[in-house]
Amino acid sequence: MATLPRVTVWNEFRHEKTDRLVASVYPDGIHEAIAAALRAKGLSVRTAWLDQPEHGLTTEVLANTDVLFWWGHMAHEEVNDEIVERVHARILEGMGLVVLHSGHFSKIFRKLMGTTCNLKWREIGEKERLWVIDPAHPIAAGLGEYIELAHEEMYGEHFGIPAPEELVFISWFQGGEVFRSGCCYHRGNGRVFYFRPGHETLPTYHQPDIQQVLYNAALWANPSSGPTVNYGHFPTPIENVTIAE
Amino acid sequence: MATLPRVTVWNEFRHEKTDRLVASVYPDGIHEAIAAALRAKGLSVRTAWLDQPEHGLTTEVLANTDVLFWWGHMAHEEVNDEIVERVHARILEGMGLVVLHSGHFSKIFRKLMGTTCNLKWREIGEKERLWVIDPAHPIAAGLGEYIELAHEEMYGEHFGIPAPEELVFISWFQGGEVFRSGCCYHRGNGRVFYFRPGHETLPTYHQPDIQQVLYNAALWANPSSGPTVNYGHFPTPIENVTIAE
Amino acid sequence: MATLPRVTVWNEFRHEKTDRLVASVYPDGIHEAIAAALRAKGLSVRTAWLDQPEHGLTTEVLANTDVLFWWGHMAHEEVNDEIVERVHARILEGMGLVVLHSGHFSKIFRKLMGTTCNLKWREIGEKERLWVIDPAHPIAAGLGEYIELAHEEMYGEHFGIPAPEELVFISWFQGGEVFRSGCCYHRGNGRVFYFRPGHETLPTYHQPDIQQVLYNAALWANPSSGPTVNYGHFPTPIENVTIAE
Amino acid sequence: MATLPRVTVWNEFRHEKTDRLVASVYPDGIHEAIAAALRAKGLSVRTAWLDQPEHGLTTEVLANTDVLFWWGHMAHEEVNDEIVERVHARILEGMGLVVLHSGHFSKIFRKLMGTTCNLKWREIGEKERLWVIDPAHPIAAGLGEYIELAHEEMYGEHFGIPAPEELVFISWFQGGEVFRSGCCYHRGNGRVFYFRPGHETLPTYHQPDIQQVLYNAALWANPSSGPTVNYGHFPTPIENVTIAE
Repeated sequence: MATLPRVTVWNEFRHEKTDRLVASVYPDGIHEAIAAALRAKGLSVRTAWLDQPEHGLTTEVLANTDVLFWWGHMAHEEVNDEIVERVHARILEGMGLVVLHSGHFSKIFRKLMGTTCNLKWREIGEKERLWVIDPAHPIAAGLGEYIELAHEEMYGEHFGIPAPEELVFISWFQGGEVFRSGCCYHRGNGRVFYFRPGHETLPTYHQPDIQQVLYNAALWANPSSGPTVNYGHFPTPIENVTIAE
Repeated sequence: MATLPRVTVWNEFRHEKTDRLVASVYPDGIHEAIAAALRAKGLSVRTAWLDQPEHGLTTEVLANTDVLFWWGHMAHEEVNDEIVERVHARILEGMGLVVLHSGHFSKIFRKLMGTTCNLKWREIGEKERLWVIDPAHPIAAGLGEYIELAHEEMYGEHFGIPAPEELVFISWFQGGEVFRSGCCYHRGNGRVFYFRPGHETLPTYHQPDIQQVLYNAALWANPSSGPTVNYGHFPTPIENVTIAE
Repeated sequence: MATLPRVTVWNEFRHEKTDRLVASVYPDGIHEAIAAALRAKGLSVRTAWLDQPEHGLTTEVLANTDVLFWWGHMAHEEVNDEIVERVHARILEGMGLVVLHSGHFSKIFRKLMGTTCNLKWREIGEKERLWVIDPAHPIAAGLGEYIELAHEEMYGEHFGIPAPEELVFISWFQGGEVFRSGCCYHRGNGRVFYFRPGHETLPTYHQPDIQQVLYNAALWANPSSGPTVNYGHFPTPIENVTIAE
Repeated sequence: MATLPRVTVWNEFRHEKTDRLVASVYPDGIHEAIAAALRAKGLSVRTAWLDQPEHGLTTEVLANTDVLFWWGHMAHEEVNDEIVERVHARILEGMGLVVLHSGHFSKIFRKLMGTTCNLKWREIGEKERLWVIDPAHPIAAGLGEYIELAHEEMYGEHFGIPAPEELVFISWFQGGEVFRSGCCYHRGNGRVFYFRPGHETLPTYHQPDIQQVLYNAALWANPSSGPTVNYGHFPTPIENVTIAE
């Protein structure tokens, strides 16, 4: 049976240093709130952030990461392209990726999706309700029929992504919009999950059912030892081939 | 983390009693060969077959089964409709189902798919090669790029099923056909996997990489404790609703 | 280029005869309202209903129908099983099917889906907004970002269907629910579309953007002359096969 | 009903000028062979190639193109990044894209897919057989159960792409490999089709059933006038929102 994933939670970690409201909600940073929740459920978790050397995502860190969580917002453009390529290659090799909230506009997510990843947004603290659409999905384990968030930023459709291979959650918003809020993809040997909630000024990541989803996502994205695929020119024919005239 | 699934392997168990060749390949029945392979990997497995009372699939057995394997061929029509309904309901409730080879024509698989599940077939013992199409999929764990079977019955497209939600294997056949050989579906709270190989006169289920797939499929189909979904008339509005004129 | 589909609109046609409110909204029956809308856009449309001989769905009618629309509600169980089998076979052969609103519980839809097709419902006339999720889809042609219905019956998730192969609409409801409201499937050579709105007491089918969806669905479900697939035992090998020992 | 698409066939157009064998098969270039086939079926087609100013893909040309075909191989890296961005934006806006054969490694296809798009290849002129997997798909219109190509270059799995939203063809190769050869995607308002065959030294694009697929693909990828989606900050709530404490 699969062993538990070694998780790295990456956070931009800028809002927390410049905005008192954010700092009051996440005093040690969003990454530490998420890491603490995953550790409490038994996972081994390290953290990394933008202002570390190589953004904390050295080749060695990535080689020892099974699932990478990604929260970013105001500084997407400061993420070095070389590091993005490194993370991308590691995902195709098998590392799982869980992209959170405003990470929809991160370089790595846009590169993986091939689309704009654009959407509508509004921060008036309205109510959100995430309905479980696929109760058979492992990311829905341990949940009720829906998750309710009393106050969240709204993200509205159209969401400029490829159709999810598995759609786990659809959000209802008080202001009249809907959103595909839990989206699964396979890319190479790696698994990618996008999870919508998590505005920096709101205590979303402190809520137990949200933490359950983060934990479920880590298990789901945990690589299994799939085949090493071979590419290139040219494989010897496996069968004897006689070419007809 | 999820516990290991309790498996029940169901087999029609008729060929083995009437055909010496089949009996020589599977002296204790196909079900015992599969059960032994799964037990050797640490799973708890019971077996059941057609000629038992209630085909061995009592309400109690199903209630204590996390994943049901199904091999049938010559006696699909002898399976009682009431038992089929019982199995169907239990799958929608969460039990996993792994349908093997000629089980494509079983009542339970046709009912779940809603289509003919028809195909082409030919038993001349030609070579089959199952290519892994989705290396990120948990059912591909521990495999190489392909599985080769020196001799198998051919199943050829078109296969009359709904497009698989996740397609894990595509088979190449010596005679010139291809086939979608590893097909995943979610149905209600349950997960369904169809796996093509396993002709009764051939030692397919004794081959280690095939046994690896069966084990992976058991883990994949193992239910997580997803939400209990509610249906019917009529749910109190969650929000205050004022009806406009 | 494809020719225009010949449409048959099937309606249970019972509510209209027994309920004054329904009769006031659809004086000639729901089928005639839909037929008129499609005819106004240039399609050739006939109608059929439950109380006709063979429910109006003779072999000859079906043979001359490219796309069948289906509205039913209170009398699903009165639909003859033999006719359901006939319609099912004709769909797999290529005829398109557009299932409307309470048709989710019809025998033909449940048979095609293989699941309960269950859901939550509430008739307080609340507001519904159908968001276009896939703007590239032909069924979204000519629409705005969403369709708004001032008053509709609510259908809420979980909707007990297989994950749609293409999801075109997601509904927002005033009472706090969401719903997958435009769902595409391929079954055999046929195409199937489920479209949620259309409560019998409400003028939904008189609304122009709803009529646009019905027209788009007729074009989308219109069969192209796909291959005649062959099944059975046993096809001569296309390639020369030498069986290895 | 939809009007016919205005097609632009783009070709690298280098092999034809430097390799006598290629020039003998496609004396006016691959683009003219494809354009002639589409014109013969009634479509309006222009051509463009790498060595034209702006690679022949000016803003004006793209604005007047409904479906763009793309054949490239030896000079992918010479395609200007700015033009790739322009084509990408136009696809998300609604233009269809049909990527042919070695175009799997083009900048535009890799950008749209977000993956390596890598594969195995071998040019010994072996036999290929493309089986129709989805007979209900419009791209399969007018075909038989399979297309046979007496001599083609082999492309083998694993193919490093996202799982196709609709899989139309699977190829069988004489040397023992299989390949997903007809792959459909929606990206923004645009539709993308990848079609495998078409090695430059072989007369694949002169074969009638291959031409039928190219024509079907042009019709399938032809944009319908889907909604103009709006993005950004911040949309006025559609509903009255009272924020609870």
